Amino acid sequence: MRIDPVLTTEEINYFMKEALVEARKAEAIGEVPIGAVIVQGGQIIARGYNHREIDQKATAHAELLAIEAANAVLGSFRLENTTLFVTLEPCVMCAGAIVNARIPQVYYGADDPKGGAVRSLHQLLEDSRLNHRVDVHTGLMAQESGRLLQQFFQAIRLRQQARKIAQRKK
Amino acid sequence: MRIDPVLTTEEINYFMKEALVEARKAEAIGEVPIGAVIVQGGQIIARGYNHREIDQKATAHAELLAIEAANAVLGSFRLENTTLFVTLEPCVMCAGAIVNARIPQVYYGADDPKGGAVRSLHQLLEDSRLNHRVDVHTGLMAQESGRLLQQFFQAIRLRQQARKIAQRKK
Repeated sequence: MRIDPVLTTEEINYFMKEALVEARKAEAIGEVPIGAVIVQGGQIIARGYNHREIDQKATAHAELLAIEAANAVLGSFRLENTTLFVTLEPCVMCAGAIVNARIPQVYYGADDPKGGAVRSLHQLLEDSRLNHRVDVHTGLMAQESGRLLQQFFQAIRLRQQARKIAQRKK
Repeated sequence: MRIDPVLTTEEINYFMKEALVEARKAEAIGEVPIGAVIVQGGQIIARGYNHREIDQKATAHAELLAIEAANAVLGSFRLENTTLFVTLEPCVMCAGAIVNARIPQVYYGADDPKGGAVRSLHQLLEDSRLNHRVDVHTGLMAQESGRLLQQFFQAIRLRQQARKIAQRKK
């Protein structure tokens, strides 16, 4: 299957690095570090990073925010000829938003064994009964994406342990 | 399983009628007529109706808009002790948003055999691997919800036929 646009390996790596830049923006504000960019015609047209805690908004995932930004940029709910790059495997909600926005191609980094809806728990982007199918590429810069998440959760655990020790000393 | 809050039959019917009021707001602006309300403590705390075409926004489904409004009202991404009423079976995206928002109870009207992700195509709200489960009640005022949708699509087909006849006469 030929997907429009066809991206070079260099472009693919560049755009995933930009998704990682977005993930680090989430990390910097204490959010689970997940980032996304949407590309059309070789250009990034929209970006997003996880905002759930700060906004206290269940829908503020990187992919959903990037999709909404791209809808606004293109003035269309249909994101034809676009590619979504995201550092973590999308959840059910974001997989559904990818289908609703008719995104034809997705690259993601690390698998999410607990909530991934593209390969791990469900294969929602390959469901022939839905009115849209997506060309999915997995594992791109998975180590870097995964490391960001591991470090984030490790830091949380360390802070929790430090708090417990401090409380015991009181 | 006891779900908090427990609603009376009278309340359940009242809130689904309010979801239908929202669906008719969508119909009035030419959108596919789907509406939703979210209830907590016996009160409607948020409402939403389909806005996809007017906003050209892939995520502007009734449920998602109601969830975001409820997040803002409660100042929390967790919609604990709430019930969502929606006139049509949620799609994949909205089912995922219901899980992400930890909504414990959902009532919906008509089944959606083409895109329903709660009973028809997938059973995403019953997946024990996700970190949240939902008590689902189906078929409430399904005829009325379905009739609204049928009339909407019938009107579109009639307009298309009238346009074709008018073009032939030119």
